[in-house]
Amino acid sequence: MLGSEAYMKLAVSMAAQTLGQTSPNPSVGCVIVKDGAVAGMGAHLKAGTEHAEIHALAQVGKNADGADLYVTLEPCSHYGKTPPCAEAIIAAGISRVFIAVLDPNPLVSGKGMEILQKAGIEVNVGLCAEEAWEINRMFFYFIKHKKPFVTVKTALTLDGKSASFTGDSKWITSEEARMDVHESRHLHDAILTGINTVNKDNPLLTARLPRGGRNPIRIILDTSLSIREDANVLTDKNARTIVICAKNASIDKEKWISSQGIQVKRFPSESIHLEELLDWLGELNIISLYVEGGSKIHTSFIRGGLFQELHCYLAPKILGGNQSIPFIGGDSFERMEQSTPIEFSHVERIGPDIKIIAKPLAKVVNTCSQEL
Amino acid sequence: MLGSEAYMKLAVSMAAQTLGQTSPNPSVGCVIVKDGAVAGMGAHLKAGTEHAEIHALAQVGKNADGADLYVTLEPCSHYGKTPPCAEAIIAAGISRVFIAVLDPNPLVSGKGMEILQKAGIEVNVGLCAEEAWEINRMFFYFIKHKKPFVTVKTALTLDGKSASFTGDSKWITSEEARMDVHESRHLHDAILTGINTVNKDNPLLTARLPRGGRNPIRIILDTSLSIREDANVLTDKNARTIVICAKNASIDKEKWISSQGIQVKRFPSESIHLEELLDWLGELNIISLYVEGGSKIHTSFIRGGLFQELHCYLAPKILGGNQSIPFIGGDSFERMEQSTPIEFSHVERIGPDIKIIAKPLAKVVNTCSQEL
Repeated sequence: MLGSEAYMKLAVSMAAQTLGQTSPNPSVGCVIVKDGAVAGMGAHLKAGTEHAEIHALAQVGKNADGADLYVTLEPCSHYGKTPPCAEAIIAAGISRVFIAVLDPNPLVSGKGMEILQKAGIEVNVGLCAEEAWEINRMFFYFIKHKKPFVTVKTALTLDGKSASFTGDSKWITSEEARMDVHESRHLHDAILTGINTVNKDNPLLTARLPRGGRNPIRIILDTSLSIREDANVLTDKNARTIVICAKNASIDKEKWISSQGIQVKRFPSESIHLEELLDWLGELNIISLYVEGGSKIHTSFIRGGLFQELHCYLAPKILGGNQSIPFIGGDSFERMEQSTPIEFSHVERIGPDIKIIAKPLAKVVNTCSQEL
Repeated sequence: MLGSEAYMKLAVSMAAQTLGQTSPNPSVGCVIVKDGAVAGMGAHLKAGTEHAEIHALAQVGKNADGADLYVTLEPCSHYGKTPPCAEAIIAAGISRVFIAVLDPNPLVSGKGMEILQKAGIEVNVGLCAEEAWEINRMFFYFIKHKKPFVTVKTALTLDGKSASFTGDSKWITSEEARMDVHESRHLHDAILTGINTVNKDNPLLTARLPRGGRNPIRIILDTSLSIREDANVLTDKNARTIVICAKNASIDKEKWISSQGIQVKRFPSESIHLEELLDWLGELNIISLYVEGGSKIHTSFIRGGLFQELHCYLAPKILGGNQSIPFIGGDSFERMEQSTPIEFSHVERIGPDIKIIAKPLAKVVNTCSQEL
């Protein structure tokens, strides 16, 4: 089994390297082994193009008869933008198929496996399932919930402050940590921030990586449409921007923003309800949302339980002060027990800073891997 | 050199295991090697008893002639409670001495080495210096500054809160993290807390380790002597307690506390000045102080720059709330730049929690190792 595991790990590594470039499709890797030698490899590279299995089969050519195929996600069974991979695998004469994770969509989960089995192919499910699930956790969440996987990102002093009482926060963390944030922006379909951040800091909200990178769609929460007219997110054309407002926002301002080629989404309520917003973003096929708000927005997402991951960058400084801006404001509780329970899933030192990844506790977030 | 380093590492490990039991002396380990075989080992075990070199030489017996001696701290050159180790090393006929770190006391530093060299012994200084310095960092700080090495300990939610607005903080962290705190109490000569903590939580402030442990001296800051008469720290006799008060504290209360066999130290100022207190604790030969205060005491120590280490236990929970008790209160600054700079020296997961050790930045805390 050691050999099999090594091949699947390679497939997982190939999938991992395509993160951020396949949305709204998952990242998938495939390795084909014949007579103990690697005969073909492939990954899905971009939505609308060949799936991983097809790339790998093409490499093997006429020679796939009797080979083993390792794939990180169940081969598809339906005609989408490309023909079903299960049929291609059968046609190529593959003998055994190793699948890390079944399709998360309950409507088709297991169907690809079934087609293979009916064709007499031996199918093995679950090899490297945890790693394969982790890579596509955002995609799996989206498939199950029809709304984006939400990552809340914050940069804090060790004592939990995100800014001085005047709002000064430049810079809490190091250049290295900020580069890591650009990497995360690249990995998410959309980025969300509030109007205060836009009007005060006029950020670009783009993924500025040395190697390039994909800019997320910029979602600006601006209940009353008070956005400054020279905002970079309106004028720079670096990425799509959507401004979200509520019932009573100025119609004239909406017209002006729209005239700049920027989409405005107006909700018919007095304020913006985050759950409705997330549902709407899901309709846009936005699989993952990176929330880089201020204290108010973070408080709404965290207290509302509307997050799947929390990326907390801790800087080696202590700000103190009762008036300093905390990560999370809002109501104060009487008891420590009333705090929001999370679990730390990852701790890492990045330059002089510490990055902590946490997840909400007591919620079954990884149902897909548990179904295996 | 590999062999030499291995012997010195062993000596360092032996010293490390005696941490917490040698105060006010440093922890020291010694290994003697003859003809390529370990011939003797020893560590200083308790103040007033034999030094590490003497234990090791006793093991070797008559056979030390021409042997190599590895010791983590420069052998002493003066008659204290025991005769000078340098003379014993010469008398035993040792050929070469490897010293990790020279004596930190500028009055005697290098003198032990010099005596050895004058007797024709080859002396090598600096092997494993960093590890050897780290072990005795509290002792070295004390020798240099004549006041205790201060460790501030705090347990916080990820968002930097130490308690709810009502003061509820039980429990922020896990059993595993609290056991680590007991280990730290064991390693410090004294523990300091404030009167609010004593009167509200009535803590024991002892080192409750499964294997036993040394209870630190309990220092209670109680400016006006408002301590509850049934306080455990006054009545339990588990460890020495010193109550610190200021000018206007009740004389009657002081008499009553003293009548219970508890020391009261009154400062002639209106309030307790921490720098004066630290000087006074230094006079008591208290080498290390573990500060487990509330927000007010922590604010004074951190803002005053009166700490050498910060132990921060982060719990996987988010409390939020503008009225919740922060790690550090006090004045609020206009700019992020005005925060207290620290550096993270250690990050560790303990059970579900994260322990971060930080040090003040831009202060030369480890002058001893830099002098080597």
